[in-house]
Amino acid sequence: MKALSNVPYSALSIGQQASSTRIVSRRDIQLFALASGDWNPLHLDEDYAATTSFGECIAHGMFTGGLVSAVLANQLPGPGTVYLEQTLRFRAPVRVGDTLETRVSVSEKRDRGQRVVLDCKVVNQDGKRVATGTATVIAPTESLTVMPRSPDLDSP
Amino acid sequence: MKALSNVPYSALSIGQQASSTRIVSRRDIQLFALASGDWNPLHLDEDYAATTSFGECIAHGMFTGGLVSAVLANQLPGPGTVYLEQTLRFRAPVRVGDTLETRVSVSEKRDRGQRVVLDCKVVNQDGKRVATGTATVIAPTESLTVMPRSPDLDSP
Repeated sequence: MKALSNVPYSALSIGQQASSTRIVSRRDIQLFALASGDWNPLHLDEDYAATTSFGECIAHGMFTGGLVSAVLANQLPGPGTVYLEQTLRFRAPVRVGDTLETRVSVSEKRDRGQRVVLDCKVVNQDGKRVATGTATVIAPTESLTVMPRSPDLDSP
Repeated sequence: MKALSNVPYSALSIGQQASSTRIVSRRDIQLFALASGDWNPLHLDEDYAATTSFGECIAHGMFTGGLVSAVLANQLPGPGTVYLEQTLRFRAPVRVGDTLETRVSVSEKRDRGQRVVLDCKVVNQDGKRVATGTATVIAPTESLTVMPRSPDLDSP
């Protein structure tokens, strides 16, 4: 496990970037279905998905929103960030085994209230943008490094 | 388990609504953390969260995005919907034990391409809006009822 360090407002610059890569597994889709309650068989039932234009199970669109959230929370601006707004455009299906790179880039710093705007995109192994959008956050004031605790499904 | 039925484009009317209620559990937050990779200790570490202005662990903002996705996918327009865009504004923290009602309401039908716009809000037990936004989808053409398969973390 790696410590998570933030970039406080004063140290953020326009164009500053962070990214994270994830190979999408069937388990990721099951986890998202359980967390969200979105049991659309397009995501969970191979037999049903085979009858659709996608031909196989695809990830929930909002799964890519989770990936964006993770880069903002874990890396840029990182711990202490308050998430205010997100726009998302779902551009292409995400399949099991896809390698997704989630990139965020600082596009605007507002003087008032430490608001920061970031361009967000999720790109697959073919360079295709599967999701794009814009995040607005309150960046943290202070430098902070935290050691994350692993999620534990058996915790009370 | 309940069958999921959709409302095809031709049967959708402005103002038509659907909603779903969920009591937020610690396990929901752990599931979202695993699905997204967002291990911000504000969501997972009670000791850390106690040092923040929130005083206790709160759910990921994007968890509310998952709840919105679920109502769109399961109910309105339901199975066969293609998710194109979502805006989200995170307005208030969500705590373990909160009862969230997620409501979507048809605000616009576009003639072209069966595009439908829906107002989305997630409201807690005190009537406070914790998240609001707008979804744009392609509504299904045909009526469809599907029997969902439960998510299964042990599936291969």
